Amino acid sequence: MRQPPDISISRLAVYLRFLEDFVKEKGPDSTINSEELAKSLDMNPHQIRKDLSYFGKFGERGKGYRPEELRDKLRQILGLAKKWNLCLCGMGNLGNALFAYQGFRQMRLDIVAIFDNAPDKIGKTFKGVKIFSPERISRVVKQLNINIAIVAVPPMAAQAVTDKLIAAGVRAILNFAPIKLNVPSYVKLRNVDLSMQLINLTYFLSSCQNT
Amino acid sequence: MRQPPDISISRLAVYLRFLEDFVKEKGPDSTINSEELAKSLDMNPHQIRKDLSYFGKFGERGKGYRPEELRDKLRQILGLAKKWNLCLCGMGNLGNALFAYQGFRQMRLDIVAIFDNAPDKIGKTFKGVKIFSPERISRVVKQLNINIAIVAVPPMAAQAVTDKLIAAGVRAILNFAPIKLNVPSYVKLRNVDLSMQLINLTYFLSSCQNT
Repeated sequence: MRQPPDISISRLAVYLRFLEDFVKEKGPDSTINSEELAKSLDMNPHQIRKDLSYFGKFGERGKGYRPEELRDKLRQILGLAKKWNLCLCGMGNLGNALFAYQGFRQMRLDIVAIFDNAPDKIGKTFKGVKIFSPERISRVVKQLNINIAIVAVPPMAAQAVTDKLIAAGVRAILNFAPIKLNVPSYVKLRNVDLSMQLINLTYFLSSCQNT
Repeated sequence: MRQPPDISISRLAVYLRFLEDFVKEKGPDSTINSEELAKSLDMNPHQIRKDLSYFGKFGERGKGYRPEELRDKLRQILGLAKKWNLCLCGMGNLGNALFAYQGFRQMRLDIVAIFDNAPDKIGKTFKGVKIFSPERISRVVKQLNINIAIVAVPPMAAQAVTDKLIAAGVRAILNFAPIKLNVPSYVKLRNVDLSMQLINLTYFLSSCQNT
């Protein structure tokens, strides 16, 4: 299989989310073609067909896709046919916001442990999920079979926490700390950089003013 | 000028951040070429040259870039040579985390007003920034010359707030609410979808297991 770029994977996730709703609304006997899908998502149908082509043949020529079937295949491709156990590192404002975020649970991404070094938080249970000291990362990650970690600690603490997570067996990290983390090549790291998102907006505004 | 894709703009922001630190460390008389820049950022030098080529000629053949000059040009291109006034809508956990986020202020992106509909928050001042009722959006946006809005309200409230912001003159919105907002074509909308970020990780983990 050709290796699809990260951006294709992100778009498959967008198609999946649309189909989840579409199947609920229209029922399993409906069909949808790439033009209709593209129109609903304000995208290019050629792009959609290309993204899907990395993973084989979908739909019937002239008939379009069966939405339920496509949804199930996308879930499988994206690794969402199974449940994943996540841990959340850092229970400050951002950690609280991420924990409350509905989207994760809908995707069967379950936060099963929280790590924070504040003495008044350690040992407490937050909506059924226990808060542990970072010292316990190694043991808890193994016991709870945690695959994915969300790093939402202050920048100064992020590398040390990341090293502990990787030593414990975590292979995928979503990092919110605004620093460049060093991870070995077998670990997948995604950085969410909030100021980078805003810069697309400042560019847009200033290029409007210049033209 | 050819219109550069959003992804090139995001990468220019990455180059800029690197150069901000580089100039501080190495001083203004240093030089750097695209190979060195690429190596430091774990990127492809061809990609860097292509991204820059949208905006004219940079550096001297065989001599590389003057980092201070490149930094200043990137600031200008990205609209960061001036200060922008932002408002933050929604002062829940996510809003608090965004307000505390250091990266914005470093880029001269100043949050100058907060909107929230909680009666116990309205009228209070948070680190020098006043919290207003969303009813005041129209007046405050104009008075404080706000260009960019961050939407961090619950999904149910996001479209109504967005409509108010646009009516008041906001032309760029960074949306954290997990819904698709409708905005006119002259408004630039960026969505930050946290579960989409995680799906790249579940894809990575499950494709590792399958091979």
